[in-house]
Parts: sequence; C-alpha cells; structure tokens
Amino acid sequence: MPNKIFIFDTTLRDGSQGENISFSVKDKLRIIEKFNDVGIDYIEVGFPASNPKDIEIFDILKTKKFSNSKIVAFGRTKYKDTLVQDDDNINTLIDCGADVICIFGKSSAFHAEKIIETSLENNLEMIFESVSYLKKNSPETIFDGEHFFDGFKENPEYAIKTLKAAEDGGADFIVLCDTNGGTLPSDMSRIVEIVKKEIMIPIGIHVHNDCGCAVANSIIAVNKGAVMVQGTINGYGERTGNADLCQIIPNLEIKMKLKCLQDGKLKDLTSLSRFIAEIANQIPANHQPFVGSSSFAHKAGMHVSGVSKYSTAFEHVPPEMIGNSRRILISELSGKKSIILKAKEFGMDLENEPKTVNEILERILSLEHEGYQFEAADASFELLVRDITRTKKKYFKLESFRILNEKKENGEVLSEATVKIHVNSNRIIETAEGVGPVNALDKALRKALTTFYPGLEKIILTDFKVRVLDEKKGTGAIVRVFIESTDGEKSWGTIGVSENIIEASWEALADSIVYGLNHIEKA
Amino acid sequence: MPNKIFIFDTTLRDGSQGENISFSVKDKLRIIEKFNDVGIDYIEVGFPASNPKDIEIFDILKTKKFSNSKIVAFGRTKYKDTLVQDDDNINTLIDCGADVICIFGKSSAFHAEKIIETSLENNLEMIFESVSYLKKNSPETIFDGEHFFDGFKENPEYAIKTLKAAEDGGADFIVLCDTNGGTLPSDMSRIVEIVKKEIMIPIGIHVHNDCGCAVANSIIAVNKGAVMVQGTINGYGERTGNADLCQIIPNLEIKMKLKCLQDGKLKDLTSLSRFIAEIANQIPANHQPFVGSSSFAHKAGMHVSGVSKYSTAFEHVPPEMIGNSRRILISELSGKKSIILKAKEFGMDLENEPKTVNEILERILSLEHEGYQFEAADASFELLVRDITRTKKKYFKLESFRILNEKKENGEVLSEATVKIHVNSNRIIETAEGVGPVNALDKALRKALTTFYPGLEKIILTDFKVRVLDEKKGTGAIVRVFIESTDGEKSWGTIGVSENIIEASWEALADSIVYGLNHIEKA
Repeated sequence: MPNKIFIFDTTLRDGSQGENISFSVKDKLRIIEKFNDVGIDYIEVGFPASNPKDIEIFDILKTKKFSNSKIVAFGRTKYKDTLVQDDDNINTLIDCGADVICIFGKSSAFHAEKIIETSLENNLEMIFESVSYLKKNSPETIFDGEHFFDGFKENPEYAIKTLKAAEDGGADFIVLCDTNGGTLPSDMSRIVEIVKKEIMIPIGIHVHNDCGCAVANSIIAVNKGAVMVQGTINGYGERTGNADLCQIIPNLEIKMKLKCLQDGKLKDLTSLSRFIAEIANQIPANHQPFVGSSSFAHKAGMHVSGVSKYSTAFEHVPPEMIGNSRRILISELSGKKSIILKAKEFGMDLENEPKTVNEILERILSLEHEGYQFEAADASFELLVRDITRTKKKYFKLESFRILNEKKENGEVLSEATVKIHVNSNRIIETAEGVGPVNALDKALRKALTTFYPGLEKIILTDFKVRVLDEKKGTGAIVRVFIESTDGEKSWGTIGVSENIIEASWEALADSIVYGLNHIEKA
Repeated sequence: MPNKIFIFDTTLRDGSQGENISFSVKDKLRIIEKFNDVGIDYIEVGFPASNPKDIEIFDILKTKKFSNSKIVAFGRTKYKDTLVQDDDNINTLIDCGADVICIFGKSSAFHAEKIIETSLENNLEMIFESVSYLKKNSPETIFDGEHFFDGFKENPEYAIKTLKAAEDGGADFIVLCDTNGGTLPSDMSRIVEIVKKEIMIPIGIHVHNDCGCAVANSIIAVNKGAVMVQGTINGYGERTGNADLCQIIPNLEIKMKLKCLQDGKLKDLTSLSRFIAEIANQIPANHQPFVGSSSFAHKAGMHVSGVSKYSTAFEHVPPEMIGNSRRILISELSGKKSIILKAKEFGMDLENEPKTVNEILERILSLEHEGYQFEAADASFELLVRDITRTKKKYFKLESFRILNEKKENGEVLSEATVKIHVNSNRIIETAEGVGPVNALDKALRKALTTFYPGLEKIILTDFKVRVLDEKKGTGAIVRVFIESTDGEKSWGTIGVSENIIEASWEALADSIVYGLNHIEKA
C-alpha cells in the first residue's frame, strides 16, 4: 500500500458539466488559488479545444506558478482520420502551456465502433500515437480510458489493449473511467485487480455516481492499487455528479492513513466545500458526509446523551479534523441534556439549574405540540431560554399593525403595512410598501426602529420558509414560518406558528430583530 | 444468492431523526398507504415508548389491514435492571398491536459498559430475555444489533455473542447496524462474511452514510448474504442520513436481478421519492442517483450526441425503468410526447395538432422558468391547455379584491377580505372574515359565487402548501402556492406563483374553483 494518493480535481472541467453550474475565468482563478493552498496535486482547469473561455484562462495561467499544484489541460485523442501532428485539438493542448495534459480515448469496443465509428485497430493507434506525440512535446501525460469498465464488461481483452496502447505510448498515469457510473462495488474490485496485473505504470480512478457508489468505488480502487483519484469538490458534475473529493479525501487520510493534502490542511476541507458551493451558486447539501452542516448534528435524546458522555459514541470521526463542528438539535426527541448543552453554546450554564431546565423543556414540548420546531430556530430557542431566565431584553413594544393587500381593477397588486410601536417613551407610526404582506411589514418595522437602533441596518433577512401544518385543513390550517437572518458574520433562525400566516410571520420577524439587536450590542 | 430481498423502510422512524424532518400522524398514514401500494415489506412506523404521537398512530393502525406491508414498532431491549415482564417499554411494544416488533440492543462492548453502564454479561441477558419474551407475546421479532460494526472492530467475539443471544432468543431476523456510518466497504465485506458463518437465521443490514458509502455497503452486505435491507426514502435520517432505498432498490432489482418491490412497481420509484420529499417539505435532490431530476440530464455536446445515437452510450440504466426520464438540457426535446399523453387523460386529442402542442410546450417552458411546476397541478395544466385551445369556460370575472390584516392592541388578529366580481351582467361585492388572509379571500369569493353556482358548496379545499423559491431573497422571494380541492369524488391540484403570496394564492384559488365548476357541470 502506498502512502501518497495523488488527488486530481476536475471541478473546473467535469464539474462544470453539472446542471446550473458554470465558472467564469475569475471564479476559476480564485478556486485554483484555494486548491493550491490545500495541496490538490492536479487541477484540471478546462478543455481548451472545446471553448474559448478555457483558452483565455490557460493564457493567464502561463504567467503564474503554483507551489503545490500542477495545472492540467483536458482533451481527446487525435481524430480518427488526421495525422497526430496535424490534429488541431492535440496542438491546442501542447500550445496551452499546462504542466500536464490529460487526454481521453475510448476504452470500449462498442464506443469505438458505434459512437466514433472507426475500426478497433485504428482506435488503438489513435491512443498510442496521441500519447506518444504528447509525451515528446509536453512534460507529463495522463490517459483517461473512457468507458473502461463498461468496455471491460463487454470485451475485456480489447479494453485492456486500449490501456496497453497508452502504456506503450509512454503515459505517466492510466486512469480507469466509469464514465456512465453504473459499476457496482464487486465489479470495481474485481476489474481493478485484473488491471493491476496487466499494467505496470501507476493507475488512477475516475468514477461517476449514477448508482450511488462513487465514493465507495474510488476507495475500493485505491484498496486494489490505484494511486490517483479523480473527482470534484461536492461531487458536482453531469447527471448524478462525479466522485466527491470532500468525502474521499477524509476517508483516505483519516481511516486509511494515506496522504492526500498538504500537512495540516485536512481541517480546511469544510470551508473549501462551502467556498466552492458559494462560487458555484449552489445551496450546500446539509447531509453531505464529513463537511455538511448536519453531518455531526444530533437530535435523538439517546444519541445526545451518548455523545455527551463519549463523542465517539455516535461520531465516526472527530468533526474538528475536517473543520466541521458538532451541533445539538433541540426537538421533541431530545431531552434535558440537550438543553443544557445548547444553552452552553450561547454562554449560559444550566448544569445546576434543574428547575429552570424542567421549565424550558415543558415550554418546548408544549410549543412543539402547537407546531413549533426549534432545531433550526436557534435564535428563537435562545430568546425562549432568556425569557424564562428573565435575561431577555425587549427593544420595542408593539401596539398594533395593519396590512392592506389589494388587487386592483387593472391587475396591479399592492401590499402596504403600518406599524405602531413604542420604544422607551416614544410612540412611532410608520408605513411601508412591499412586494408581499410580510415584506411590507418587515420594511415598516425597520423604518420605525432604525432611528433608535442604527445597527439594525446591518441585519438582513436571508431566508423565508413557510410550512403549512395539518394541510388537510386547507387555507384554515396552521402555518409555521421560519426566517433566517444575518448581520454579515453570524446567521440565526427564528420561528413563528399561527393559523394566520401574517401572525406567524410577525412572530418570526420580531424574534429575528430582537435577537439580532441583542447580539450587535454585545459585539 | 436468494431472489427476494426484504425491504425494511424506516423513513417514518429513523428518517424523522433528520434535521427539519417531522411527520404528523396524517402524513404517516398517507405515506403508509403509498408504501403498501409499491410493496415495501416492512414499514417501521415509530417508537411508541418514546413519544405519544407514535402511540396515537399505532391505535389508528389497529383498525387497518395492509395487503403487502407489515407494520413495525421500534423499541429497545429491557432496561438493565428491570424484569422483562415489568419493563414499560417492552409492554408498550406488545400492546401497540404492530405486526412486527423491532428492538435494538447494544452489540458493542464499549457501549454496553460505558454508555448504558452495565456488565457485558447483563447486556447479553437483556438481549436474550427481551427477544424471547417478545417472541412469546408477539408474532414476529427483529433484533437490531446497534453499533455492531464498531463493536466487532473492537471486540469481535463479544459482538458475535450479542447476535447469538438474539438468535438463541428466537429472533426472526438479526440486523447488523453501522450506527455511526463509519465502516468502509472492505470492512463491511469482511465482517458480514464472518457473521454469515456464525449466525444461522436470516440477517439484515442497516447502515448510515457518514463516510458516503451507505448504498455501496448495503449492496456489499447483500452480496455477502444479507436478505433484509433497512433504509429510508431519499436517505433521510440523522446526520448524513440512512442508506437511501431509492438507490439501493434499483441497483438490486435492475443490476443484481433480486426482487424487492411488487411486480411492476419499480417504475413508481421516482414519483414515490418526490411524494415523500413533498410531504417532508424537503427540496428534492436533483443529483440523487436513479430518481433525481438531473440524473438522466445530458449537457455536454458529445454526450448528447452519443445518447441520441444509443441511449446506453451515456446512461447506465433506462430511466423509464424507475419512472424517471431523460432530459436534454437547453433544447427540450422530450416534452411534446408527454403533453399529448397528458391531454388524452382529460379527453383532448392533440396527436395531429403539432402547432398547438408547440404553443403549449412554449407556454409551459416559460412558466416553469418563472417557478411554476405542473407535476402535481393537473387542474392548472388542463386550464392552460383549455385556454390555448379556446375551450376554457370562464365562470366569473374579478374586478378587484382587498384584504385587511390587523393585529390589534389587545393582541387580537383579524383577517378580512372583500371581493368585487362580475357574473354575466351582475356585479357582486362580498366581504368575509377568515383565520388568515387566504382563508378570508376564499370565503368571500365563495359567498359571492354560491348564489349563481350552488354546486360550489360541494367543492372544498383540502390542502394548501406554500413553497418559497429562491429562498436566499428572504421575504422578497418568489412564492409558489399549491392548492388541492375535492368535490367529494375527485381531487385536483392548482398552482399559483408570484412575488406576492396573496397574488399566488389568488391564482391557485381561482383555478381551483373554475376547474371544479367545469367538472361539476359536466357530471
């Protein structure tokens, strides 16, 4: 077993084939800096022969040097009836100035004959000639055997021949691709074992997640001798995506003691995952193994009490190792222990306050019975605890509000809100229009408060969710509103429940502002 | 290799440990009906000793029979120092009337000694006595060996002893649990192989996804002889979630030729996945293998052209097998056929109307771009088609409406709506109060229409859902409202989308009434 596995990231190339994912040249440059910082060995930046944006970035990269990462350009073997030295795609690759060139060729007899429509013999020559020409004209060449696993299942001798053609051409790595992602773990294990007996140069693995086994298959290939893993951050990629490096790297480093990143950089993985999600404009997947925000979140009472005794009781690895953290969720399934732990998070020690803890638990259970849910509404939970412990500061008092929604004869829709509030001894009346009733109410309230609390300008609403409970009651059902807010540094969630959506929204809105003001004051 | 794998679904129990997931009693009943319909063998409904909501549902289920599914209650072994016949938890399980009882016990020496704080010997007795007592007092007993894999890695002899205690107690199945989800494929394969030599009764597998290998590990366990797979729909569950049955079932059925569901039901899997997401109020994961909306979506030019020659070129299985469909991104080629089929459902033949079909498709694409979704809103789809084909009857014309929401000084909340509409040559003005703005609007509209259309009294709203799209925009985001209505015989769904929740609700409400009146007239 080797101790170093080479990580080959293709987020910028294969990852950008994912639905709704695209990267600008600037995005790519920012991402490359980050990758170099953590020590991704190979960064596949683009396919210069396929689009002009990719040529532009390789031009910029010619002037840069990276201490930890090699820049890779992706392309294909020469066309079936050109001479290799006249092939535009091959020459573009050589000219682009990348440190490494990675080309794919067909490792499946079916694809050679039916998709690119050439003879099996010519396909082997295309591979051999392209690899050997690139080796003569550039420093490092990687061969991706496209559709290798499907090809092997149909015609194993031929599939191996395509790899041997690349080996004979002098490739530095041969990468086995499960392009359609349909290979099961048992086949992965068996086939890589056979390849290792036939091919002498280092091999790599590149899999897609179509049967949900991309992470496992990558690990199995490493078990069987692969020394390079190709994948993407967060598993972005076409269809179901590529193998997720955010899951593979910690498995290899923590569990299999194989070196992937630069020393000490594993703990940057969670922030890397979220950074890439932000740039790609994707909502982070909460349940993503290792790096997701729920991945070390505990809800069931027995699990919470287990984790508080020994963290290994319900955690397979310490979350800090990948820069993630444990979260205790408050819900009807949790008990007193979770309340004590949760209160500790905002600096309140309830360890020796059994009466208070009981009171909090009872209040939560009765509120949850009404439809409240505190696991994401951490700010509403804190305000509830502060209310019971009489440490809640009130910043204003509502006298009344009124919201008018109109659909006019010309079809125009209008929402307008008026609030009447008291701050200390002042009575304030303000009116605002909004795109909907809650937006109007939010604006009117802020207008009324900002004079007294200018810090409020920093607080913005970032998320607004509505859940109709007991839906069978139609429009008379109970509604739960969840609001997320931020002051640019910290985010918090609040909740409101009522038969009336306006009242539920008001509760969540008021909590969100009170919590925000409280934290701005403390900061 | 057996031909039948028993599917044990725990979406309603372990799945509801997931962050932001909770099911009402009504939700659970709707889901159980669906599970029975596709043929899930075991449905774990809840943990009756842990919460009163779960006792309520088992009471309701006592009066029901399901043709394909067994109802399972979940619990724990007896406490460390009670007599089994006096153990409340065990007696609650027996009394709840479930077809099957599944209990967990500790299969790890560390957990027995450190978490529940008892002797290794007493832990074995707790397992043996609980299983044998349940076997005497209920028809079928399943034993979940909690933390089995971690336990085996620390102390293999003891871990196996815990299983043997359940076997000696007469358990019908012994389930190996990777409770912390940290087991890698190579260990899974090795350990299940050993267990199969030691344990003679059928074994099952229950894994979590903490290292991203839950689907692969479940399949590997089946390869090594497990005949029951426990998991959840969409992989919902605590932390990173449970093993996703939507990925495991098609792998087993299509690739490994093992029977899981009732004949012909595999093609309902995509709609089952989306139904559960809707009920759980979770955004469906587009990249979810097999059932995700992007899972057969092709973007790369070469892939699109490959797929158009031979679908197997870039698809590991035919999407129709699981009720999913191919999507070519940007150029939408797949839509026309479905429009023709869908129109046939309400008796309109568009086979020879390519111009109309094109017009419908364009309208749908542009509406979907705005956030509309017609999958569940069949009535809104029919009205759209009738609008384009000029076969839509209008029953009234809206002049304007106005809704007033007030929160008064005494805390009272009030919603009041006034509508002005025209029916033929009559102008009607009506006002009504409601529990919320949409409820008030609904009541005012009905009040105005009932004199002219007495059949309207039969139509009631049964479901009202709100989903905030583009949540990052806070209260200024686009909102999608879905309404379900019934006339007692038939149900239909309608949809509205707007930045303003009141306008979106109005759209869905108006469609719902127009569609209902149209169908009452025809009946």
